[in-house]
Amino acid sequence: MARVGVRLDANGRVAARERLLDATSALLGERDTLDISLNEIAARSGLNHGLVNYYFKGKEGLLLALLERDAARALSELEHLVGQNMPPLTKLELHIRGVINVYFRYPYINRLINVLQSGNADMARELARIFIAPLQKFQARIIDECLRAGDIGFVDPTLFYYTVIGACEFLFHSRNTLPYLSGPPEITSKLKEDYADHLVRFLLDGLKIRSEQPA
Amino acid sequence: MARVGVRLDANGRVAARERLLDATSALLGERDTLDISLNEIAARSGLNHGLVNYYFKGKEGLLLALLERDAARALSELEHLVGQNMPPLTKLELHIRGVINVYFRYPYINRLINVLQSGNADMARELARIFIAPLQKFQARIIDECLRAGDIGFVDPTLFYYTVIGACEFLFHSRNTLPYLSGPPEITSKLKEDYADHLVRFLLDGLKIRSEQPA
Repeated sequence: MARVGVRLDANGRVAARERLLDATSALLGERDTLDISLNEIAARSGLNHGLVNYYFKGKEGLLLALLERDAARALSELEHLVGQNMPPLTKLELHIRGVINVYFRYPYINRLINVLQSGNADMARELARIFIAPLQKFQARIIDECLRAGDIGFVDPTLFYYTVIGACEFLFHSRNTLPYLSGPPEITSKLKEDYADHLVRFLLDGLKIRSEQPA
Repeated sequence: MARVGVRLDANGRVAARERLLDATSALLGERDTLDISLNEIAARSGLNHGLVNYYFKGKEGLLLALLERDAARALSELEHLVGQNMPPLTKLELHIRGVINVYFRYPYINRLINVLQSGNADMARELARIFIAPLQKFQARIIDECLRAGDIGFVDPTLFYYTVIGACEFLFHSRNTLPYLSGPPEITSKLKEDYADHLVRFLLDGLKIRSEQPA
């Protein structure tokens, strides 16, 4: 869990590396683009911009480190959920709501993933290693619990991953076009909750009307 | 339907504008990036690269025109489907399979949408106008038919859009990371079909085991 904690320097202050990540996170959260300059990051953090190169070997490395930090927090919450003693179907529902909350909390995360994903092969491999593979692993464990409890029919965990994450991320991914479509022009807390309810119902129960009476 | 047809010049040859779009489509289909140069487009089409500026006012305009052409073809197929005389639930299934086929046929389309979507507000509005709004409209008609037939429970058409398109596009969106995860390292025809089967079952029936006997 060391990666999740905040590193302090010898004087107990938040270390420069963390301050650069915090500044980048704050700037990305305020804007609709990843185009922030090293000078802006330096100004926000109160540090020399040369430190970005020192700690991260440039902006791409800084963005990857930020994703790694955000992903570690989200994955640690998911790991906690997997270990809980509760009905497997409730875990599955909480997981879906959790994914939506991560995208809501870090509005820049899908943009970050997109850029890293469409970059070079090294970046794609890093992204798979730090985020996608662990996420798939935790999902597969929840699915397996649901299956063994007899709650759900068989589902391929890999295809499940693309369905759930794709459906969650696309709403946030699309926010620039929201003002030009029917519905709310931005992602409010209410839209986020409505979407979570919709998705949970959709994924668990499907669209078709069930012919049986409620139990 | 004029937009969908191929424009010919006075001598019956495919017009220069179409040849530039065809060359761009072919190049984008071969590569994993939108970074193709005007010189490459010129060489592939056998035309002077100044014509890109003449017809499209630059590369961004060319990419938007290409998306508009691909979208028009896909939307025209969807319009045809909506007008068919068949059970509404079958239309819904064929629509979901159709969306996956569009992403399979135009492997560059999500990259194109991403770039345009994260661009300036004019581009986002154009994207909403030429693609997203008409797609939502056709989907809402199919959903309404299913509802009136008593086949499905209520579903918000806008949220449905984000769920279905997001789940479809994410598989294709993620193809750079596929080699580093379990499962096939690339999107084969079989993976595409498996995903379509999975998604149709997921969206229509949901994950939960139904307690009633099959009818």
